[in-house]
Amino acid sequence: MVGHSDLKVIINKEIKNFHSIWLDEKGTINAIDQRKLPFSFEIFQAKDLKQTCFAIKEMVVRGAPLIGITAAYGILQAANAFIGEDFSQLEKKLKNASEELAKTRPTAVDLFNALYRLEAVLDSSLSVTKNIESVKSMVETIVKETLEECRGIGEVGNRLIADKCTIMTICNAGALATIDFGTALAPIRKANEVGKEITVYVNETRPRIQGGRLTAWELHNEGIEHFINADGAAGHLISQGKIDLVIVGADRIVSNGDIANKIGTYTLSVLCKEHKVPFYVAAPRSTFDLKTASGKEIIIEERSGEEVRTAMSIDSINETKAKRRIIHHPFSQNVNPAFDITPAKNISGIITPTEILQQPLEQSIKRFFG
Amino acid sequence: MVGHSDLKVIINKEIKNFHSIWLDEKGTINAIDQRKLPFSFEIFQAKDLKQTCFAIKEMVVRGAPLIGITAAYGILQAANAFIGEDFSQLEKKLKNASEELAKTRPTAVDLFNALYRLEAVLDSSLSVTKNIESVKSMVETIVKETLEECRGIGEVGNRLIADKCTIMTICNAGALATIDFGTALAPIRKANEVGKEITVYVNETRPRIQGGRLTAWELHNEGIEHFINADGAAGHLISQGKIDLVIVGADRIVSNGDIANKIGTYTLSVLCKEHKVPFYVAAPRSTFDLKTASGKEIIIEERSGEEVRTAMSIDSINETKAKRRIIHHPFSQNVNPAFDITPAKNISGIITPTEILQQPLEQSIKRFFG
Repeated sequence: MVGHSDLKVIINKEIKNFHSIWLDEKGTINAIDQRKLPFSFEIFQAKDLKQTCFAIKEMVVRGAPLIGITAAYGILQAANAFIGEDFSQLEKKLKNASEELAKTRPTAVDLFNALYRLEAVLDSSLSVTKNIESVKSMVETIVKETLEECRGIGEVGNRLIADKCTIMTICNAGALATIDFGTALAPIRKANEVGKEITVYVNETRPRIQGGRLTAWELHNEGIEHFINADGAAGHLISQGKIDLVIVGADRIVSNGDIANKIGTYTLSVLCKEHKVPFYVAAPRSTFDLKTASGKEIIIEERSGEEVRTAMSIDSINETKAKRRIIHHPFSQNVNPAFDITPAKNISGIITPTEILQQPLEQSIKRFFG
Repeated sequence: MVGHSDLKVIINKEIKNFHSIWLDEKGTINAIDQRKLPFSFEIFQAKDLKQTCFAIKEMVVRGAPLIGITAAYGILQAANAFIGEDFSQLEKKLKNASEELAKTRPTAVDLFNALYRLEAVLDSSLSVTKNIESVKSMVETIVKETLEECRGIGEVGNRLIADKCTIMTICNAGALATIDFGTALAPIRKANEVGKEITVYVNETRPRIQGGRLTAWELHNEGIEHFINADGAAGHLISQGKIDLVIVGADRIVSNGDIANKIGTYTLSVLCKEHKVPFYVAAPRSTFDLKTASGKEIIIEERSGEEVRTAMSIDSINETKAKRRIIHHPFSQNVNPAFDITPAKNISGIITPTEILQQPLEQSIKRFFG
């Protein structure tokens, strides 16, 4: 474990181009423990499917594309752990693994898309060894695609960012939410890379403060000017004309262009509509759910009220052991919907790895996926 | 000091009808220390003007009407401390006191209204003793009016609340923000008193969490069902049809009906407009600022970014010493506008102590004040 005061050293040495997740030679998943950032930088190791499910459920890893990658690695772990020559046994084992992974978190469709693609490679006419190779190959494809698509989103989204632009975002849709580079943060990173002067307003994103903890940490590492605001201040900042553009990630984009994303996203979309500020969603292909017709069909994950009642905190900047502490009247009840639905009509466009999907989104999405 | 675990005893004994502030026989201001609630219940004592200014500035007391009362008591302290028979010296001293108090916080107009009324009672044709008596008498009038007006707001606002109604609020506009009973919480308390089944959704109100700490504490003490939500969840809750009515307080209501209130209020008003949910503002007469034409003229208090970077927290419910702890990436910058402006057009009506001011608000306000 590395304390916060040492972090700058690490950042300069190796974090600048870190991956948020990787599989080591033993088949163990290594992932930055996002529950602990930015207070301490720790690598969480998931040696088997059970630990991998824990990592998703408890938000050691989070962010739709990263959840998908983690699930893919989980299936590979299950496949690698298989002993025997019976295809139907392998198939059954992977089906069980898939079911376990599917139960971890309901919203990010990247998870289900990864599971679906990995299931689809199984071929009863081939040997167990060949099938395991196919799984491995598909996992590699998914990883490679995610890496490339995030770069693509950066290139495409950068076109929307003028010099001296002020961009607002919510939650974390950065390298930490993917493997590298990010979705909503990808255009911002690209704009910074090509020398545009930009400023980012980061909604802190209660209750889990992915904005104030994770996005702020990433932007700081990249040397991008940014300000963290209380979520309630977004309306004021937007109404004052301080925001030129809002870019958010997505946990799921359905056929009609409605999206599910971190709680608070819908509010931003309404504020943008009110003040005619462009509101863009950035996502890779894996975040699209063409089987679902409308956002109304998406079930919103209701997480524990404890997350709202508490906040992860440290006593001083030299402390590395962050702890969830009570910040509310402790005898009150809390509600904690983790996501909300932003209707297609509130979205200016969707930044994909190859183009910006324009309104009407339903038709653009249909065309995009052929 | 009383620990949280002992609080229930106090609540039953005396807190049920507590005042948030009172002057004792020695002329010392006693006020519930709102920085520490609900984690510990402590009475802050301000013995002189300097301590009284500190109490306002550091938010030992907060809430527009209570800031006004505290300032009035501050002037009385200055008057009581005056020695001599020279009226012009007394006048000068009170003018200085008034200037000190006026510098504490800029938004709540109740403060300026109280200072203005106390200045207006001074009469150079009368003795110093008589003038001090006039100040005392006006302070008593202001206190009495505030108490009565909050009851009135409760009676009037209760008419808007149907049985089984779900009401959303932000920040704390309860007994703690006034002397007793509250402004936005007054109709809610009244509805509860007369036996209506109601549910309250409380926006936690980052950064200082007056919703999650203070409003939740008050509602709990009154036995009113309530849920605390992250500020970002308001849009989802409203869009799901879960909220029948929003009632908020105000720090300032200007001639055209625009209001300044806690950061996040404007966002709620936009969400209510989008979903046709009634959005009401509750305030006593002292919160009206007829000298200001429009909300655009109100200067928004920008408080320290440290308030956003941190949150007051306790380690366990048995702990009484709450402490501000870091919850963000500590090397990032924060912005902290403490208030925002809600334009008159977003407001369904203003609940006053005697009637609900309807649209067009500008004309209603003009008529109301004759």
